[in-house]
Amino acid sequence: MSRFLKEQYKDMEPYTPGEQPKVEGLIKLNTNENPYPPSPEVNSILDSDGIRKLVRYPDPQAAELISAIAEFYGVETSQVAVGNGSDEILAFIYMAFGRKIYYPAISYGFYPVFAKTFMCECEAVPLTDDLRIDPDDYKGLDGTIIIANPNAPTGIALSREDIRGILEANKENLVVIDEAYVDFGAESSVPLLDEYDNLVIVQTYSKSRSLAGARIGLALACEDVITDINKMKFSFNPYNLDRLAIMTGVAAIRDRKYFEECCSRVIKTREWFTAELKRLGFEVLPSKANFVFAKNDRMPGKEYFTKLRENAILVRHFDKDPISDYVRITIGLDEEMKKFIEVTEKILCG
Amino acid sequence: MSRFLKEQYKDMEPYTPGEQPKVEGLIKLNTNENPYPPSPEVNSILDSDGIRKLVRYPDPQAAELISAIAEFYGVETSQVAVGNGSDEILAFIYMAFGRKIYYPAISYGFYPVFAKTFMCECEAVPLTDDLRIDPDDYKGLDGTIIIANPNAPTGIALSREDIRGILEANKENLVVIDEAYVDFGAESSVPLLDEYDNLVIVQTYSKSRSLAGARIGLALACEDVITDINKMKFSFNPYNLDRLAIMTGVAAIRDRKYFEECCSRVIKTREWFTAELKRLGFEVLPSKANFVFAKNDRMPGKEYFTKLRENAILVRHFDKDPISDYVRITIGLDEEMKKFIEVTEKILCG
Repeated sequence: MSRFLKEQYKDMEPYTPGEQPKVEGLIKLNTNENPYPPSPEVNSILDSDGIRKLVRYPDPQAAELISAIAEFYGVETSQVAVGNGSDEILAFIYMAFGRKIYYPAISYGFYPVFAKTFMCECEAVPLTDDLRIDPDDYKGLDGTIIIANPNAPTGIALSREDIRGILEANKENLVVIDEAYVDFGAESSVPLLDEYDNLVIVQTYSKSRSLAGARIGLALACEDVITDINKMKFSFNPYNLDRLAIMTGVAAIRDRKYFEECCSRVIKTREWFTAELKRLGFEVLPSKANFVFAKNDRMPGKEYFTKLRENAILVRHFDKDPISDYVRITIGLDEEMKKFIEVTEKILCG
Repeated sequence: MSRFLKEQYKDMEPYTPGEQPKVEGLIKLNTNENPYPPSPEVNSILDSDGIRKLVRYPDPQAAELISAIAEFYGVETSQVAVGNGSDEILAFIYMAFGRKIYYPAISYGFYPVFAKTFMCECEAVPLTDDLRIDPDDYKGLDGTIIIANPNAPTGIALSREDIRGILEANKENLVVIDEAYVDFGAESSVPLLDEYDNLVIVQTYSKSRSLAGARIGLALACEDVITDINKMKFSFNPYNLDRLAIMTGVAAIRDRKYFEECCSRVIKTREWFTAELKRLGFEVLPSKANFVFAKNDRMPGKEYFTKLRENAILVRHFDKDPISDYVRITIGLDEEMKKFIEVTEKILCG
């Protein structure tokens, strides 16, 4: 810390990203990336003309990407904003609208960090005892609400009607639904956009679109809210998406077939893997995401995490009550998940 | 504007980027990009392995890029931070250190915008009558100082000793030197880093490294200041550089020979072009950047700008006193600058 740092940031704890291991050969199931590569269409950015054009600034409006996204979701281009990952989109939302923020006490670890970064008051709303979000807990509040749906790290989803109920009960509050994992079987709130001007949906290319490395996030909302988000962008970093990211994003979203196939394969693997874990005596929360949150009664979560690591399998463990006995396991390739089951049998059953 | 936007942002005027024309065939001299393509080494990112790896998050530390930059400048890796363009680096600096900000009244148009975005008080320090920054105006101040060196849109540079004088007179203030254009003939303050813990140097890949489209900026400072800048990054957007940008940045900075050749060519063209403009009766400020700021006494700046546009030449005009009679002309290819002179002779001499 330098002597110049602002007082308000002296005690701020930044977000801790999941480990990006430098060693090769690990089965990496810790950061919810997709096991399948990006759409082959993305290879189209691989030509030297694209490289030559890097000499020019990108389009600050990212118009081609916005159009492709609007077409995919069947919304107007004025209802779409893009960011350098959904983290940047979330940051713009906190900046623009962050009065008091309500968020689930167990959810994406960045939600309270953003509040500190942008000096918003915030309040963690507890989950139920069975680790669910109770929609009734988000009714009649006096601030901006942010909910990951499906939630992380539980994987449990709310229905579209649950979200509708929250929107109805918060007509004067902005409700942000973070749909990072929605494509793996949950109900998206996109169909509600035309009815509610207090709804913002955040999505990312990092999970279902196999492009965590390209950093593309997006917001869908009514035109006025998108205008405000873009006002933040143009007052912060107008060229936030580079040329290669824009090209990548356009190519990937136009390949709907590949996208749907990858999601189906992940879902199928998740269902098989969940059944296998249950067979070994695990309690597995009902996941609609590309990960599962599971615990067993034979070994504490931290110890199980460590044993997996010793066997070259990386998952995520949160050393925090009441989830310290769980691990979050990203759904990888079939062969990776089979290996996972084998290793777990060895660890737990000897 | 939505009804949810925070009060403080209702009147905020975002930054207006230079026009990125959609029409083909223009001579584009309005946003200070490099006329030469990126280093051929950047082509090395063009393989399908790079695309396949986009499925994984980038390294949030961007360690390989940080190392390559540290090696280029002969500093420690702990003295380097990277951002999604130098705009993001500047934003982090305002966030972390922005008490009161002093900046030149005529300079990069984003400086006062950042102040509004991050709610810092700010004060524009007037230039001299001949549009120079007087170092004495920045002595004994009570806040963070930010100076573009060379300044934009004038192109006029301060010497390293001028900067030293400002650092000496502001031991309790952070002094930010924005060296976006320094590689075209000005003196960098990098050699002062070991002596001054109140110095932050900001640089960009968008100008001298021909990579405006890749969005890479960097800060060089003492370790503590870099720690604070990274604290902002990790509390805002840890994965701010995507995989392709990191690879591009590493390849480009390792090719020192190509970089030096491009800078020399731009400087040579600038000197020829300046002499030509003077031959036509222009007043041209002494530029150490990849653009010149020039006016003539036969036609107001706005009219000249418009006439150039009608002749498919795009430059930048700022409709603001006392610079409304100037235009800012990016140094392009030799043939573009020759064409510019021809067109200008036609416009002014009929």
